[in-house]
Amino acid sequence: MKKEIMSPAMKTEGKGVKVFYGEYVNEDYLFGYISRIIYGESGLQNIYILEHKFWGRLLFINNNLQFTSRDEFVYHEALVHIPIQSAPEGFIKRVLICGGGDFGAAREALKYPSVQEVIIVDIDPKIPKLVREYFPELLPEDPEDKRLKLITEDAYVIVNQYLQEEKTFDLIIIDSTDPDIGETTQELSHALFGVDFHAKLKKICPTGIIVQQCGTPFTMKNILTGVYRIYKEVYPEEEIYIYRANVPSFGSDNAFIMKCPFKNPQFPKGIELSNTRYYTFEIHQASFALPKFWKEALEL
Amino acid sequence: MKKEIMSPAMKTEGKGVKVFYGEYVNEDYLFGYISRIIYGESGLQNIYILEHKFWGRLLFINNNLQFTSRDEFVYHEALVHIPIQSAPEGFIKRVLICGGGDFGAAREALKYPSVQEVIIVDIDPKIPKLVREYFPELLPEDPEDKRLKLITEDAYVIVNQYLQEEKTFDLIIIDSTDPDIGETTQELSHALFGVDFHAKLKKICPTGIIVQQCGTPFTMKNILTGVYRIYKEVYPEEEIYIYRANVPSFGSDNAFIMKCPFKNPQFPKGIELSNTRYYTFEIHQASFALPKFWKEALEL
Repeated sequence: MKKEIMSPAMKTEGKGVKVFYGEYVNEDYLFGYISRIIYGESGLQNIYILEHKFWGRLLFINNNLQFTSRDEFVYHEALVHIPIQSAPEGFIKRVLICGGGDFGAAREALKYPSVQEVIIVDIDPKIPKLVREYFPELLPEDPEDKRLKLITEDAYVIVNQYLQEEKTFDLIIIDSTDPDIGETTQELSHALFGVDFHAKLKKICPTGIIVQQCGTPFTMKNILTGVYRIYKEVYPEEEIYIYRANVPSFGSDNAFIMKCPFKNPQFPKGIELSNTRYYTFEIHQASFALPKFWKEALEL
Repeated sequence: MKKEIMSPAMKTEGKGVKVFYGEYVNEDYLFGYISRIIYGESGLQNIYILEHKFWGRLLFINNNLQFTSRDEFVYHEALVHIPIQSAPEGFIKRVLICGGGDFGAAREALKYPSVQEVIIVDIDPKIPKLVREYFPELLPEDPEDKRLKLITEDAYVIVNQYLQEEKTFDLIIIDSTDPDIGETTQELSHALFGVDFHAKLKKICPTGIIVQQCGTPFTMKNILTGVYRIYKEVYPEEEIYIYRANVPSFGSDNAFIMKCPFKNPQFPKGIELSNTRYYTFEIHQASFALPKFWKEALEL
């Protein structure tokens, strides 16, 4: 099934197949890139990497944009720094990332010296491999950082294992692809988006923070409302918070849901890092302000 | 030059030419709409209206999206309520809108009973006409509102006239199309984006607020940095504020620059209206928090 589009010679010259590549964002609405495909593979997952004049490199899985080298920092900083800074200074020591095989979330978490362990569990062995070759900037500052461990496995399986071992975490990050939901009435089927999975996470993260990315609600509202419903089933309602970040290549604002047992997470509690490009304490606080139409959709 | 694409019969049936319509957002990057063109005209300005499954109706001028019926409220509420609420309760009585022939900004300003006069000065007589026919939801709640006046003229000319008449305003809104700037080094040429124009505005709005929309900086940074430079030349630096709003159909966050003589504009000072869909006092405050990379680009 695998078909590499480029020969090694073409790679060296920075060439590939020049195409108009369209990503469907909603029905009859797409983002179009006139671009070269520098890596392509069809199989269980369809993976394409484009090299683009404005965005730099873009990674698509199953025709969903995962990130671009130009603005991935916004997504990863929002995903990681907001939960870490919502906890008391130094509280977050052990971090589990479900998905996140692109290393971006791990790179951000490892910026904190107080973080002692970061485990990435990603089902797809190809993503880390492709990132090492095509997106080295997503790797941690020290790629050999001893605190980092990458496990190639279904996160569901590993979480079960930790449950038996009674291993716990201070922060769990669900950094997965968006579930494949078309119409607004369809159920969330992806395992990492279910009540079962969260019930287990709650047990291995009993006193910490559990954060999940929820796509861009304006164009795919059912992810946010669906995950919010699941969070309300599993976690105490007063510990659930929603925040947002504008990742330019995603179009409209991306949503994140967080179970956080610490009061007033909108006020950062740690020490502000200097090595960020999006995140500041001012942005932290502002991220929790939601447009009125979001609140109405969520019945907040 | 004018060529209406639809016959009246087609209009009634909600039909038109079905096309893939692409809007260039940056080099080799475009937003694509598989959609029907329900109004088309090429001439001094190229105007197209699409009818789209997700976005509703979209208005394009010279292949730049002006607004969609699905999310124009975000842009117009951010453009109008943030400056009005930055001033003391009841301060804004006379409002001048340069551009804004689509009525959206006027609709928002007229929601305040304390506003006594709203003047729209738009150079293009076709926009109000098309809005009345295709986007009636942009009209003020009372379309016959006696406080509203529409002048079809170049705003530059009218501002000169007010200057001679010594007529003054409490709020001036520059709600224009983005200037046509391609490369980052090119100068801002559009008359409504110049130092001259602002020097005149300052005189007819000596104690009030002057706000200008500045496009989406991530994909067209030079508009924001260019307008900011102009503001700094004309207005006291400590009275200049930048804020943002995510208008989903624009992609990344839209920027707005405001000259505001009132301290701490991030704290709203009036009474919160109930008839908004995006704006709240929480959103007001959050709008002033800028991503770190914006601040760096602006040397803030």
